[in-house]
Amino acid sequence: MNEGSRGVFAAAVTPLTAALEPDAAAFVAHCRWLLEQGCDGVVPIGTTGEGNSLSVRQRLTLIDAVGNSGIPMTRVIVGTGSCALADAVELTRASVAAGAAGVLVLPPFYYKEPSEEGLARFYSELIERVGDERLRVYLYHFPKLSTVPITPALIRRLLAAYPKTMAGLKDSSGEWPYSAGLLKEFPGFEVFSGSEGFLLANLRAGGMGCISANVNVTAQLAHKVYAAWRTDRAEQLQKELDETRVVLDRYPLPAAVKHVLSVISGNPAWNHLLPPNRPLLQAEGRALISALSAVPQMKPILGSKA
Amino acid sequence: MNEGSRGVFAAAVTPLTAALEPDAAAFVAHCRWLLEQGCDGVVPIGTTGEGNSLSVRQRLTLIDAVGNSGIPMTRVIVGTGSCALADAVELTRASVAAGAAGVLVLPPFYYKEPSEEGLARFYSELIERVGDERLRVYLYHFPKLSTVPITPALIRRLLAAYPKTMAGLKDSSGEWPYSAGLLKEFPGFEVFSGSEGFLLANLRAGGMGCISANVNVTAQLAHKVYAAWRTDRAEQLQKELDETRVVLDRYPLPAAVKHVLSVISGNPAWNHLLPPNRPLLQAEGRALISALSAVPQMKPILGSKA
Repeated sequence: MNEGSRGVFAAAVTPLTAALEPDAAAFVAHCRWLLEQGCDGVVPIGTTGEGNSLSVRQRLTLIDAVGNSGIPMTRVIVGTGSCALADAVELTRASVAAGAAGVLVLPPFYYKEPSEEGLARFYSELIERVGDERLRVYLYHFPKLSTVPITPALIRRLLAAYPKTMAGLKDSSGEWPYSAGLLKEFPGFEVFSGSEGFLLANLRAGGMGCISANVNVTAQLAHKVYAAWRTDRAEQLQKELDETRVVLDRYPLPAAVKHVLSVISGNPAWNHLLPPNRPLLQAEGRALISALSAVPQMKPILGSKA
Repeated sequence: MNEGSRGVFAAAVTPLTAALEPDAAAFVAHCRWLLEQGCDGVVPIGTTGEGNSLSVRQRLTLIDAVGNSGIPMTRVIVGTGSCALADAVELTRASVAAGAAGVLVLPPFYYKEPSEEGLARFYSELIERVGDERLRVYLYHFPKLSTVPITPALIRRLLAAYPKTMAGLKDSSGEWPYSAGLLKEFPGFEVFSGSEGFLLANLRAGGMGCISANVNVTAQLAHKVYAAWRTDRAEQLQKELDETRVVLDRYPLPAAVKHVLSVISGNPAWNHLLPPNRPLLQAEGRALISALSAVPQMKPILGSKA
């Protein structure tokens, strides 16, 4: 087990220029800021990072920028999933070469109801083609978006074939019994929750922590839960974290966290999103900030700008 | 209206090497063969062509190969959809530069329930960035796979903004009323059916024809329907085409047509598929060929090899 891949990970949003190109320097700065805010790690170009809306070339630029930034790569897990095997291979190779602690890999998500055999073949081909002992793969279970669930049978099969490479899974199903079942069936398999709402539950059940979109703006609060998870203050801290989560979860991602970042930083460029995602409408943005400001523990994070 | 973009189009399958690279020479040969068999046109790297399972580099190789093959590009519509705007732009530019009659563009299909605004922005950005008067866009309505329907409201909006560029739509919903509604509401908007099962109905209602997977192996039969669609033999010919369709539709695509091609050509390499798609199992392949052989009009196509 890798000591770096544990705790609170931010599914980092991607700053974009007005021309909708990723701003690599701003991205590195955001990752640094997240680590300063209390994140244990960052996950570039996942769902929140609009990874699938970026071309391979654009994604490679971001991987290289983080790899060359001096950010400890033991704290970085890169989203490298793609419908195209060759693209997933290229992105994964680049991430391993940059020293990333792991890669988070969506199943190919265009064709519906693929066979278990077909999915196993996708991941096997990926692992064999990258062919690097340093490779650590986290499967990405997000049936609502990918439409392709990662079944326990598939995990069993891949763990048997690649016990050293198959590191774990991010569970974005929103259904706690799924994570709980994996933690029971596959000891040592590193399960991250896709929502900070399950952070404490996940840690208590033997999981690694969370990889979450909302912690782009609530890292300080999530960090408190992780720092205290074995203490009797943990439940209260989780409750305080949840109070920000329920507000953020009312708005579309990643627009909501990008909007909050635009307010925290005073930089409206944070509101650029790649289509089909769209920025919050003005009224939505105002309502979001107003609701977040009403949560006392969020006030110091929003600062005087809200 | 473009006289080339009418009739029976094959959603051409992509021959792959054992290493799962597209075989560009074999692909060009297959496209030529399809035109000889009676196809009016071909659509490379769509759903049947495993376009989304190929990297942009691999797709560009196939576009270039067809563009340089001498095949009349007025008979070619290229699948250029991608979740990433920048990829869709690059593939579309290459297709226009190669002289393609049009491009068939999926909506970005990772994020679910995108707003109409977000989808309009995706297509608008694509059209503006390609910025070429020769560009003709066919929208791709395939909600079962893309999960993102193309609504009449979106079409109305895009037609108003880009009347010369918005050429038409491929309807793979399998629901005839959807095509019928578009043909009524948008005269001159070129509607292709995604199934050869609607070929006659589509032509009679003012549509352009079909873009179909099955016609990779039943082009001769589909051609007869198109050639005779104004005559009183049309319904019988459509019925004969349907008899092959119902057999093929029992098996997963594109594995089924690739398997039939492997039998027709005697070349087992046709059975290579990119994961997560998988080739037919041996028993499936035998059952398919046996069922097709029992359809009299399919016998000459299968030849002595079946």
